Parts: sequence; C-alpha cells; structure tokens
Amino acid sequence: MDRGRLEALSDGVFAVALTLLALNLTVAGPGHGPLGHQLTQQWPAYVAYAISFFTIGIIWVNHHALFRNFAAVDRVLVFSNLLLLFFVVAIPFATATMAAYLRGGGADARLATAVYAGVFEGMSLAFGLVFVWPIYRRLLIVPLDAASARRATVRFTIGNVAYVVAIGVALLSPSAALAISALVAVYYVFERTPAQPAVGGPEQLA
Amino acid sequence: MDRGRLEALSDGVFAVALTLLALNLTVAGPGHGPLGHQLTQQWPAYVAYAISFFTIGIIWVNHHALFRNFAAVDRVLVFSNLLLLFFVVAIPFATATMAAYLRGGGADARLATAVYAGVFEGMSLAFGLVFVWPIYRRLLIVPLDAASARRATVRFTIGNVAYVVAIGVALLSPSAALAISALVAVYYVFERTPAQPAVGGPEQLA
Amino acid sequence: MDRGRLEALSDGVFAVALTLLALNLTVAGPGHGPLGHQLTQQWPAYVAYAISFFTIGIIWVNHHALFRNFAAVDRVLVFSNLLLLFFVVAIPFATATMAAYLRGGGADARLATAVYAGVFEGMSLAFGLVFVWPIYRRLLIVPLDAASARRATVRFTIGNVAYVVAIGVALLSPSAALAISALVAVYYVFERTPAQPAVGGPEQLA
Amino acid sequence: MDRGRLEALSDGVFAVALTLLALNLTVAGPGHGPLGHQLTQQWPAYVAYAISFFTIGIIWVNHHALFRNFAAVDRVLVFSNLLLLFFVVAIPFATATMAAYLRGGGADARLATAVYAGVFEGMSLAFGLVFVWPIYRRLLIVPLDAASARRATVRFTIGNVAYVVAIGVALLSPSAALAISALVAVYYVFERTPAQPAVGGPEQLA
Repeated sequence: MDRGRLEALSDGVFAVALTLLALNLTVAGPGHGPLGHQLTQQWPAYVAYAISFFTIGIIWVNHHALFRNFAAVDRVLVFSNLLLLFFVVAIPFATATMAAYLRGGGADARLATAVYAGVFEGMSLAFGLVFVWPIYRRLLIVPLDAASARRATVRFTIGNVAYVVAIGVALLSPSAALAISALVAVYYVFERTPAQPAVGGPEQLA
Repeated sequence: MDRGRLEALSDGVFAVALTLLALNLTVAGPGHGPLGHQLTQQWPAYVAYAISFFTIGIIWVNHHALFRNFAAVDRVLVFSNLLLLFFVVAIPFATATMAAYLRGGGADARLATAVYAGVFEGMSLAFGLVFVWPIYRRLLIVPLDAASARRATVRFTIGNVAYVVAIGVALLSPSAALAISALVAVYYVFERTPAQPAVGGPEQLA
Repeated sequence: MDRGRLEALSDGVFAVALTLLALNLTVAGPGHGPLGHQLTQQWPAYVAYAISFFTIGIIWVNHHALFRNFAAVDRVLVFSNLLLLFFVVAIPFATATMAAYLRGGGADARLATAVYAGVFEGMSLAFGLVFVWPIYRRLLIVPLDAASARRATVRFTIGNVAYVVAIGVALLSPSAALAISALVAVYYVFERTPAQPAVGGPEQLA
Repeated sequence: MDRGRLEALSDGVFAVALTLLALNLTVAGPGHGPLGHQLTQQWPAYVAYAISFFTIGIIWVNHHALFRNFAAVDRVLVFSNLLLLFFVVAIPFATATMAAYLRGGGADARLATAVYAGVFEGMSLAFGLVFVWPIYRRLLIVPLDAASARRATVRFTIGNVAYVVAIGVALLSPSAALAISALVAVYYVFERTPAQPAVGGPEQLA
C-alpha cells in the first residue's frame, strides 16, 4: 500500500464531503414567501454548516499531520481509514437532518442533535483507531515520546468524552449539544496533534 | 499514458462515488411523522450504504495494489479501467433503488436486489479485465508466478460466482442476496490480491 | 503555472462530472408503478449515460495525452482549459435533459438532443483551442511534424463536423443524432491523438 | 503541514464546487410546458453559472500562483485557506438562489443578488488573508519587492471594493450588481497576481 494514494483518496472524500455540506443550503424558491424570511428561518442550517465544515476541516488537518509520520501502511490501517471516511461521509446527512429539525424543537430536535453528535463520536473513535494502531504496530517514522503520547491520549479523550456528553445533553437541550460540538472544533483549532513533531516556527516544506 | 493521472482520475471517481452513497441517507423532514420512526424505517438504506461503501473501498484497495505492479499502461487498460469506473459510478444508483424497494418486499424488492448484485457483477467482470490484460500483455513489473496466478484466479472466480449466485438468489430472497454481497465484501477484506507482492510485515513506503 | 495542479484540477472536474452523470439514474420509488416498468422506460437515460460517460472518458484520455507534451503552460492555455471544463461540467445537465425528453418525441425531443450535441460541439471547440494554442506558441516538448499536424487537423475536424451535423440531424431525428454522438465516441476510442508521440508498444512509465 | 496536501484538498474543493454549479442547470421535465420556453426562461441561471464558474476558476488560478511562492505553511495559513474554501463552497448555493429570484424582480431579486455579491466579498476577504499572512510571517520563497506589494494591494482593493459596491448596487439594480461581478471576473483574467514572479514568456515547468 502506497501512502500517497491513501492520502489522495482521503483528500478526495474530505473535499467532496466539505462541498456536499453546502447542498443543505437551499431555499424553497419563488412562491414560498419572502426570501428574507426564508433565509433568516434557516439559521440552524448556517450554524450547522459552519460547525460541520470546520470539524471536517480540522479532522483533515489532523489526518494530514498523522499520516506524515507513517513510515509504512498496513491493511488494518487502510480499513481503519475507510471506517473514518465512512463517518466523514455521513456528516452532511447528519447535518441536514439536524438543521431540518432543530428549529421545530421537541423530541425530534433532540433525536436529530443526538444523531449529529453520534456521527461525530463515530468519526472520533475511528480517528482514534487510525492514531493508536500505527503506534502499537511501530509504523511511525518518529516514535512518540512518553510525554507526547500522554498529551495525545488526553487530547483524544477530551474530544471523545465531549461528543459522548453532547449525545447525552442533546436529549435535554439540542442547542447546548450544538454548542459543545462547536467548542470541540474550536479546541482542536488551537490544540495541535502531538503526532506532528513540534517545530519552533512554521514548518519547512520538504 | 502516465500511470499517475490514471490513478488520480480513478481515485477521484472512487472518492466521489463513496461520498455520493451518503446522499441516499435522507429523511423526509418535519411534517412526515416522528423522526425516530423515519430513521428506523430506513434500516435497509443503512445496511445498503455500509455494504456499498466497503465494497467500493475494497475495490479501491485492490485497484491500488494492482496498479502498483504495472510497468506500463496501454490503451486497452485505460478503457478497461473506464469500464470499471462506469460500474463503480452506477453503485450509488443501484444502492438507492435497492434501499427504496427492499422493505416493501414482493417482485420489486427482488428485481431491485438483482439489479444491485448485477452492478456488482459488472464491476467484478471489469475488474477481471483490468487484472488479466496486463498479465497477458506482460505489463507487470514483477511477473506473477504460477502459484500466485492460480490463487488470483480462484479469488476472482469466487467473487464473480458469488455475485452471479446473488443475482439468482435475489429472485427468491432479497435479504439472502444482500447477505451474500456483504459476505463477498468481508471475504475480500481478509483475502488480499496476489498481484501485490507478499511481504513479511507492513510494506515500506517507497 | 504548474502543469501538475492544472492536471489535478482537471482530473477532479472530470471525475466529478463522470460521477454526477449517474445522478440522472433514478427511479421514482415505491408507489409509482412496477419497478421493472420504471427501469425499462428509462432506456434513454441508460443510453445517454453510457454515451456521455465514454465521451467524457475519451476527452480525459486525450486531455492527458496532450498535456504530457506541454513544456510550459501560459495564461491563455489555463483559461482555454477552464472553457473546456465549463462544457464538460454542463454535460450531465445536457444528458439529463435529453434523457428526460427523448422518449416523448416531438419538438422537445429534437431541441433536447440538439442542445446535447451542442454542448459536445462546445467542448470539442474548446478542446481544439487547448490543442492549437500550444502549437502556435511553441509550448510543446516534442514539436509536431507536418504529417502529425495534418493528421491531428483531420481528426479534430471530423469530431467537430460530426457534432455540427448531429445538431442539424437532431432537428429531424433525435435518435440519429444520438447515434452520431455515439459513433464519434467509438471513433475516438480507436483513433489516438497524434500529440502523444507514437510508440511501438505500450508506453513505459517515466 | 505539507503544501502538497493543502493544494490537493483545495483543488478537490474547487473541482467539486465548479461541477456542483452545473446542478443548478435543470429543467422541470416533460409536462411543464415547451422545453424551448423552459430553457429561455432560465437565462439568469446560465449567466449566473458562467460568472460563478469563471470567478471560481480565477480564484483557483490565483490560489495556485500564490501557493507556489510559499516556502512554508503554518496553522494560521491552513485555517485561512479553510475559510476561503468555506466561501467557495457556498457559491453554488448563492448562485442558485440568485438565479431563482433574479427574473422575478422586486425585493427578493435585490436581496438574492446582494447575498450573491456578499459571498464573493467573503471569499475575496479570505483570499486577502491567505495573501497577507505569508508576507507578514515571511513564509515566501521570493519576497515581494515594494512595487509588487503596492500593485498587489491595489489589485486586492479593487476586487474587494467592487464586491462591496456590488452589494450596495444590488439593492437598487440586481442586473447592475451582476454586471459588476462579471467585470471583476474579466478584470482578474487580464490582471495577474504579483505573487507569481513575472516572467518574459510562458513559464517553464519545474
């Protein structure tokens, strides 16, 4: 297995998933009331679009940082990566469903938001597999030192626990669950994966 | 013909096909009954999505293993590959049709599942062409030894026969045909293509 | 401008256009008559899908052969290539429209088929620009000799004239125009672009 | 961060966005009046498709010219690029909405065109960030000289001001705002980004 094509397929799936998210942004068209009303009514779709877009974006950034450190790729890693993509590809569906039901409130809004957080949790667990397996099988170019491994464990645990909490919170308050999902995205923007060797300044291009 | 761009186009088609599969995952939206009911009613869509996703994923893994061993690419191979992509691209349609009709049962469920298995059979035959032609035209970097060639023949025959059986079984029991398609996917996850030179451990990146 | 990214964008657009073609393949779903009837009624969609798929595939093969011979890429070439992609991207729309109206016959079938052939003509003219400009500006690695240039001119003229004829014929017989479009695709499968240096056997990978 | 995968993801998103634009090109199908009438009624969709296609195309050309000159990529640049893609991906939605409402005129046409120009302004501002940050952080291979920096500032200011003007004009005359958006695209076709080192003739491929 050649790392290049694994990255190429993954980049393709990430790119298509990012773009398909925007297919949720639609208006009913002329004859369905003033456009301004239609657009403002859709605020959950915009919020959901933004959270999902940057969550996929961050997963891609971390995916990329991880893969750079793989000296070899085995079959388990290839199928773990497929599992990760399986959840990434489900995000536009979960986003559209959540956006459609959030404003209505009630049991449906709670369920839709729980499904949304659930897909993120699935993605997060699959990402954990892609992260842990190469360490276990010693596929890394630069082995993680103990401090980095500890920090990585903390980092993944935070994301995974946060999404599990979001699933639970969704059953009480969908908006709060959405806020947790947004906060996880913000957290990962500022907290980089330790699999990527730390550098003093910007990294040089190889 | 440059192998790189042939792989790039193929990777692009595989990535888009994988992502489009998830477009089948939709709910009718507010005003069409409880969301929970809508979601559970759609179980055939989830099963079909999972089987199709991992079948395309496996074809991609095998495609990739095959192409690594091509020293040269000729026009027949390029068009055989297009034929393969032709069937890959039809999988989201076959999946959506099958998912829509499976639960209803009757003649339509049987036909939809037969079409589904038929598209997989078409893909499998086209893949056979992409596999056999380079052996015949000696386009391989590392020629297959007799044992590997025999094992490859067995492997491809199993997939092809299984899908033909699935087409027949679909006319009796759609669920059984679906189970066969799932088993083929599981089989290929564990049985690697012999075109990829066997290595003792994980392969090194070139 | 770096040839690699120009090829990457083009490959991406070709891959997505190939896959979107299959979005035309849909059935109305349960409650709209027997599935078998729905599927057989859609034969124009299958024919159109196959012709469009292989036409885009051939354009990609020729695009690829051409670009290999470019020593440099200038701004005119970049925008000519965008014009080509502009028509490639319109093919799924033209295909869907043609497939929707062909069976009904009458003026609409004639117009829809003329639009279909017209998009192919636009693509063909844009491809001519991508072909001619680098010769005129001497951007080729291996200059075309007189015989190759003559053969290339004949080749492009055949395609362009055939599509113009198809537009005219569409106004009399949509099926005949469709047959011409299919024949052009078959012709280009067997007749390779002379921009690709002729080799005795399969080409070696660089 | 490796520049190659950042470009690969961006190219993928650009390619999918370009192709999804054409999903706006649809006709209602048989039984909704003569096809000719349906097609001519859709002229705003064609104009919008063409403007959006070439605007995305130009952004891609400039994106590409910029990235060639990056010696290093840091986290701020990666997320600025994600923000740029966020707006690129919203263009098909803004285009479809504008095309749907333009012909009807009135307040909805004005709002839809203002949203359209607004998405272009967002994209333009994000592109400015991708342009300015690497200069500020000295990530360039070839530093910009004072004249080039001045010319670049003028160039970006023109685009940004033009889109802001288009937002305002849209509230008076949607057609005029559309014309401004088209003119910006034409301007950028002929005015190249100074981040790309000037060369006497066509650039050599590395």
